[in-house]
Amino acid sequence: MTKAILVVLDGLGDLPDAKGYTPLSAALKPNMDRLAEEGTTGLFHSIGRGIVPGSDTSHLNIFGYEYSKYYPGRGPLEALGAKFPLKEGDIAFRANFATFDNGKITDRRAGRITTEEAKVLSKYVQKLKVGTGIDALFQNTVEHRGILILRGKKLSPLITPTDSHSTGPLPKSAPLDPKDRNAKRTAEALNKFTRMATQKLDKAKENKDKRRPANAIIARGAGTYTKVEPMQNRYGVRGACIAGGALYKGVASYVGMDVIDVKGATGTFETDLKAKGKAALQALWSHDFVFVHVKATDSFSHDGNFIEKRNIIAKVDKELIPTLLRGNCHIIITGDHSSPVKRRAHSGDPTPLLVWGPDVRPDEVKKFDEFACGGGSLGHLQGTELFQTMLNLMDKSRMCGT
Amino acid sequence: MTKAILVVLDGLGDLPDAKGYTPLSAALKPNMDRLAEEGTTGLFHSIGRGIVPGSDTSHLNIFGYEYSKYYPGRGPLEALGAKFPLKEGDIAFRANFATFDNGKITDRRAGRITTEEAKVLSKYVQKLKVGTGIDALFQNTVEHRGILILRGKKLSPLITPTDSHSTGPLPKSAPLDPKDRNAKRTAEALNKFTRMATQKLDKAKENKDKRRPANAIIARGAGTYTKVEPMQNRYGVRGACIAGGALYKGVASYVGMDVIDVKGATGTFETDLKAKGKAALQALWSHDFVFVHVKATDSFSHDGNFIEKRNIIAKVDKELIPTLLRGNCHIIITGDHSSPVKRRAHSGDPTPLLVWGPDVRPDEVKKFDEFACGGGSLGHLQGTELFQTMLNLMDKSRMCGT
Repeated sequence: MTKAILVVLDGLGDLPDAKGYTPLSAALKPNMDRLAEEGTTGLFHSIGRGIVPGSDTSHLNIFGYEYSKYYPGRGPLEALGAKFPLKEGDIAFRANFATFDNGKITDRRAGRITTEEAKVLSKYVQKLKVGTGIDALFQNTVEHRGILILRGKKLSPLITPTDSHSTGPLPKSAPLDPKDRNAKRTAEALNKFTRMATQKLDKAKENKDKRRPANAIIARGAGTYTKVEPMQNRYGVRGACIAGGALYKGVASYVGMDVIDVKGATGTFETDLKAKGKAALQALWSHDFVFVHVKATDSFSHDGNFIEKRNIIAKVDKELIPTLLRGNCHIIITGDHSSPVKRRAHSGDPTPLLVWGPDVRPDEVKKFDEFACGGGSLGHLQGTELFQTMLNLMDKSRMCGT
Repeated sequence: MTKAILVVLDGLGDLPDAKGYTPLSAALKPNMDRLAEEGTTGLFHSIGRGIVPGSDTSHLNIFGYEYSKYYPGRGPLEALGAKFPLKEGDIAFRANFATFDNGKITDRRAGRITTEEAKVLSKYVQKLKVGTGIDALFQNTVEHRGILILRGKKLSPLITPTDSHSTGPLPKSAPLDPKDRNAKRTAEALNKFTRMATQKLDKAKENKDKRRPANAIIARGAGTYTKVEPMQNRYGVRGACIAGGALYKGVASYVGMDVIDVKGATGTFETDLKAKGKAALQALWSHDFVFVHVKATDSFSHDGNFIEKRNIIAKVDKELIPTLLRGNCHIIITGDHSSPVKRRAHSGDPTPLLVWGPDVRPDEVKKFDEFACGGGSLGHLQGTELFQTMLNLMDKSRMCGT
């Protein structure tokens, strides 16, 4: 019994409302409470005290890869999540189909175009020559989302984005340092792509008569893809990832975990938790640990929806945890960060953590929530310490010294 | 309600006496106990476990500037606290008027000369030429205390002090590394200043017929002044400092906080706590957080005075905290380090910490003292983690990643 399932409920931690409740403390969750009572608990800071984690950096640390050393930027992680065959040195961006009118971006999501429409339009911009020895490769993912790759020699991600995160004039990319030749070359290539894509998409018959044509592609999150030492070499364990969101799959793939696609795992409230649970049990046969990600907790936090955040936690307790318990393995439940509903955003507060199984030392805590776990015997864990703790739980932690 | 007041009771933490009490645990402090009960608690190490913090290094960390990277030495911080217009590259020292007799320093404080007497004498040594292109600038501060600046090119703070912290022969300054030319030049300039100051002060009519003439100036704490990125740029917050002691004002000024002078804030038991409280409320309008420093807790520790340390804590509870509560903001109360009365010195023990306000998760702790806070859900915070925690409390912590 040396395997583990690591459940991350995205943005799980919260702050008390006027009555002193958090969605987690208010949720009906007899299974998690029992695991907390039988196991050990604490608080987890995926980056560090008070620091607000992003979704990408937090998961790198959760998987044992220090973000400060391994973070490649969002682009490469999104591209890996979309199963794009990246090559070392590629500059990858997160991209959007957008509506361009009279020199301005009027809709950053092109009227939330469907995935099917985006797929057809992506043909026009799949591969364009945007400089001497530089190709631009585009791939649509979900709805208006996509990824853009600049492939060639002497490229640099140190450039400004063409997606300003707001409507208005379409920004030109520029090197962060005007003297940086590679960055200048890359910014010029990106600008050329933007011009060519706009011309081609504007002429596309699919965009005719559309109120919000998808006639531009804007890009952000530039990063260079570099291979990292896979988890199996670095830590001697095989990990599987079960997640709906592309970014989480991307991070898992980047560190060498196997990404398992589950039908019905959508990253929404409707996500099929039972299917995820069954897939986790299946993956446990061939892996040392399985990471199971639930996105909806964070989504409801961003919506400021206390009730639905509480409800999805109860649903996880009812539909996911019982299945996982059949895995006869250690179970870790935590979040990647807090996302207080009152802030509608990530925060730097720690997230509750429980570790259950035969190789843990039970503490006095009998409930799984932000308050009770503050008294747990694990205390405060930071960064990659959770992964190291899991390795030890699995009896896979290597000796340091002799 | 996203602002904060950070109260630092200098040297607050202590060790138990024969009956098991500390000044804090013995003090009548219903307000702080209530805040502890309603808020969350822990222990704070301003530098690190077991390390004895200085007043300067601890406050750099408290303000979010890692001392290991930003500590300029005591001299520049004292000079900034005295509002001396430092220029980048200045070598600054903490200086004392002293009594010099027959080649020896016989009193390091010149009979604790008054500020008024020191002001008159300082005219003789205000600006002296002490080398090719090197000026020595002296400014008296409080009583026998003052600051000395060496201004010129190719100077270095890597020299030995002329204040040996004890009576006896007046030490000559020397470079720490005999091969270091700039340090040699600086030591020579300092020695020249010492000679010139002794000659001039010895002849001064104000020193005639004095049993303990203030006829020498001794210096220590050499450091180079370099500007640092101000807090508002680095962290996006505006901080105000309310303190009696020059050193605390100096550290605050160094990191770009606004130093607010309060009439009656003396850094002694008689300090006007109500005036400080009112000034803090006033400063809160135009700042994100206000730092309020109380020195007397540490002074009584150095005197080994348990009763008076206990009394000043009770006085803070009665006269300062109620005013601060009217600020309708988060309140943090802690120390910069422990100063056990039985040691009459700083120690490496952590200091109790409480964080109160709407965005904290209450724990089971119901009292504010060294023992109770050891069970608090904040656990142990170190170094700049307290500042990061405060930033998050104010919803001003920036995201790391995306």
